[in-house]
Amino acid sequence: MNEHRRRRSSERAAAKGSPAIPQLSARRVRSPYPPMALLSADQVEAIHEASMHILENLGIEAMSARALALLEKAGAAVDHATQTVRLDRGLVAEALRTAPPAYTLTPRNPERKIHLGGDTINFTLVAGPPNVHDMERGRRAGNLRDYQDLVRLAQHFNCIHMLGNQVCAPIELPANSRHLDTYFANLTLTDKAFHVSAIGRGRALDGIAMMAIARGLTLEQLCADPGVTTIISVNSPRRFDDAMSEGLMTMAEHGQSVAVTPFTLMGAMSPVTLAGALAQQNAEALFGVVLAQLVRPGAPVMYGAFTSNVDMRSGAPAFGTPENTRANIASGQLARRYNLPYRTTPGSASNVADAQGAYETMMALWGAILGHGNLVYHAAGWQEGGLTASFEKLIIDVEMIQHMMEFLKPIEVNESELALDALGRVPTGGHFFGEPHTLERYSTAFYQPMLSNWQNYEAWQEAGGLDATQRATRLWKKALDEYVQPPMDPAIREELEAYVARRREEIGSGEP
Amino acid sequence: MNEHRRRRSSERAAAKGSPAIPQLSARRVRSPYPPMALLSADQVEAIHEASMHILENLGIEAMSARALALLEKAGAAVDHATQTVRLDRGLVAEALRTAPPAYTLTPRNPERKIHLGGDTINFTLVAGPPNVHDMERGRRAGNLRDYQDLVRLAQHFNCIHMLGNQVCAPIELPANSRHLDTYFANLTLTDKAFHVSAIGRGRALDGIAMMAIARGLTLEQLCADPGVTTIISVNSPRRFDDAMSEGLMTMAEHGQSVAVTPFTLMGAMSPVTLAGALAQQNAEALFGVVLAQLVRPGAPVMYGAFTSNVDMRSGAPAFGTPENTRANIASGQLARRYNLPYRTTPGSASNVADAQGAYETMMALWGAILGHGNLVYHAAGWQEGGLTASFEKLIIDVEMIQHMMEFLKPIEVNESELALDALGRVPTGGHFFGEPHTLERYSTAFYQPMLSNWQNYEAWQEAGGLDATQRATRLWKKALDEYVQPPMDPAIREELEAYVARRREEIGSGEP
Repeated sequence: MNEHRRRRSSERAAAKGSPAIPQLSARRVRSPYPPMALLSADQVEAIHEASMHILENLGIEAMSARALALLEKAGAAVDHATQTVRLDRGLVAEALRTAPPAYTLTPRNPERKIHLGGDTINFTLVAGPPNVHDMERGRRAGNLRDYQDLVRLAQHFNCIHMLGNQVCAPIELPANSRHLDTYFANLTLTDKAFHVSAIGRGRALDGIAMMAIARGLTLEQLCADPGVTTIISVNSPRRFDDAMSEGLMTMAEHGQSVAVTPFTLMGAMSPVTLAGALAQQNAEALFGVVLAQLVRPGAPVMYGAFTSNVDMRSGAPAFGTPENTRANIASGQLARRYNLPYRTTPGSASNVADAQGAYETMMALWGAILGHGNLVYHAAGWQEGGLTASFEKLIIDVEMIQHMMEFLKPIEVNESELALDALGRVPTGGHFFGEPHTLERYSTAFYQPMLSNWQNYEAWQEAGGLDATQRATRLWKKALDEYVQPPMDPAIREELEAYVARRREEIGSGEP
Repeated sequence: MNEHRRRRSSERAAAKGSPAIPQLSARRVRSPYPPMALLSADQVEAIHEASMHILENLGIEAMSARALALLEKAGAAVDHATQTVRLDRGLVAEALRTAPPAYTLTPRNPERKIHLGGDTINFTLVAGPPNVHDMERGRRAGNLRDYQDLVRLAQHFNCIHMLGNQVCAPIELPANSRHLDTYFANLTLTDKAFHVSAIGRGRALDGIAMMAIARGLTLEQLCADPGVTTIISVNSPRRFDDAMSEGLMTMAEHGQSVAVTPFTLMGAMSPVTLAGALAQQNAEALFGVVLAQLVRPGAPVMYGAFTSNVDMRSGAPAFGTPENTRANIASGQLARRYNLPYRTTPGSASNVADAQGAYETMMALWGAILGHGNLVYHAAGWQEGGLTASFEKLIIDVEMIQHMMEFLKPIEVNESELALDALGRVPTGGHFFGEPHTLERYSTAFYQPMLSNWQNYEAWQEAGGLDATQRATRLWKKALDEYVQPPMDPAIREELEAYVARRREEIGSGEP
């Protein structure tokens, strides 16, 4: 956020009589540390070899005639009866030669550019929940009003770099055209990059076209400087359905970003063992990379990973587990094995924004950070295994993301930081509060949390004795109050409105 | 815990009609991964140099005539008027030659032996809070009944390897002899290692003597095979008070373990900058190591670190912050620079066992793990910045520690784990639930949490819709119910009782 806009936001809050919620300023987050390695080099190679075995011998089902034709033309062995494609590892190697190791996504505000690859880490809003929850209004079906409030919160908090795909489904709107309403909200209520739905060609094209309008670009210009991404969720095991195949190809045709993400829940959609799940994930992700590169060599693609486990007593999915955390780190090693940007995810199965929600999410978030996820998807607001977007959890998650951003600030060791003068001046058993060295630095020396309460017990009780979840309710309300809509040229807004109106009519009751 | 005792505990629970709380079996926790490095080698050396400057030029105040005499005799420059000791770096190097890089603590049950050093990580119960809290009875002053229940919980949960110093202060008992009551509880209600108070010579000697009785050893035998540790909390900046100096020397004389731990809250008791705080911490910790080695070359010592920050608006201490987390990792680099076992600490300032308590503790716990803390002190039950031992927080912490233990299990990649046969059998879009590969492994494939709830929303609501804190209340009650007191030879118990009675009389109203 630029200085001008930040001032406006805090001035507005001040005018309402209370200081603005403290938050970190907008910044590109980079890790100064090497990623953690859980797998040895030999283990990475063994998983690679197993995934090549899967691609070469077991094959992947691609339920799209266009995809099958493209793969067959490139030399893959296609069994048309079963729509199964067997890929030679040479095809994989060829695709990896053209896939870019890093790229950017530019939204309508170029200051919000997203860097995908290398040491940069981006955090996104939760995507896809059918439900919404907050502690006052309870759990309800997704709807446009909550959708708008949630993207306002994503706009307000600088640590959320991008919106995911539909923070909740606005189910009161027609299913075949609600993507137009959510894209419109994304583009007018925020100026951040976002995820377009790639469930079929039409939804993807609409997102691409609307981002081009918002940036005042032609589709050709947008192709050269992409602005949106999608996630291609593989129907694991080993299946790319028609809609996802078409969505992937449409994005690649237009030079927009694709994160190919197998959803490999160990014990359910993949083997119960981590090595087996990673081998399968790897094969599926690389298959999508090959398809994107065949459509358009050089198309921006991410290695996506979402490997967690299920509760083997009930089959229920679990997130933020030790297994999920290990997978987040190990998958980063695989993504880097192929020199691809890496998408990963923290999560929790908790049904409420409580201690479990916090520790499970923090667990997997550390995995995402130590694994150098370039895109940490679903990072804010994820509750109930992704079935609910939670207002309170969003606040807790923003606090945890900010903790990570501060943790990643490089440590300086120099004469000024070593403070030997101050150490010589303060007597034994004394204190540093009044030291010039302290006074010069104290206002910015430490991270100032927005949610954590550091009052002593008595002061905390006098202030109402609110726990973190109760304080989070106050904070999301205050953030909505402080929210400032980013300005947009009225001509562009009109063009977007006209696009939405025209497409809504075209779609009618048919498929987008 | 041996198989026999574990069976007894679960049989007892089963007899009461509900399955025992699932928990990990007792094991030595080792990290298969290298520790994280936040500081470059040059930065480590710069901090080392600054700490040598502090020791050589600024000096440390030691408020004990015995300590001053010992240091002076060894060649340190002692200013008797100010009790300030300036140490040559040669003396530090000499001490580091005799300090052991690793050692063990053996409690009365040798299966509970603690390994301090190398890649082993141990977790302890919170130590020192004046207060106790649970969600039903609220906050109250420490007392013997709660003390006993809290050490029973520490005994029950296998992931707690050791007791800290007085999980709460039993304030209804006389201050000068209550250590006898708490040592007696530690030794009879648990068979784990524990921390003895080193506030002066008497308390330390009593702890040493009672551990010797419990193990049926003479003091000489205990000296060769230590059983207890203490923490020497430095009165930062740069002061070792009389009681702590005497306690340290008493422990070293008897060959028992000492963790020298400066409490360096940045901005208060140390410079506001991390580098400055680490330089001070390093000087203070090494001073204690030198003193211990002068008393008895080869005495077991740990490099202790407890560097966090304060809230600069109020001066209140904060824990589990990004700064605390960085210090936990960087301090491990310093401990290893000197080839010393490393004591570190997670923590939280939250006044209640809520989401803040979970995310702050998890944040610093990751720092402790990535920094390879050999002794992760205060790891279970810490609340309110250490002022309160919380029953619910203890349960949440045990869950988080178990997450870490599972995370640290080495990953296997081999033919069986890669599961290519299963991958070839399950059709595209199918599932692995019924696969032999899954069925052979599912019961032990994943970590089974005790606190996390993975039910779907409806089932969770039907079961009462309890959040993690509410479930934690049920769990600590159930754990107390399942608790089995470890057997003790009646003759040893009598000897301990006699020791306590005799010492209580000796102490009378005087100093222990």
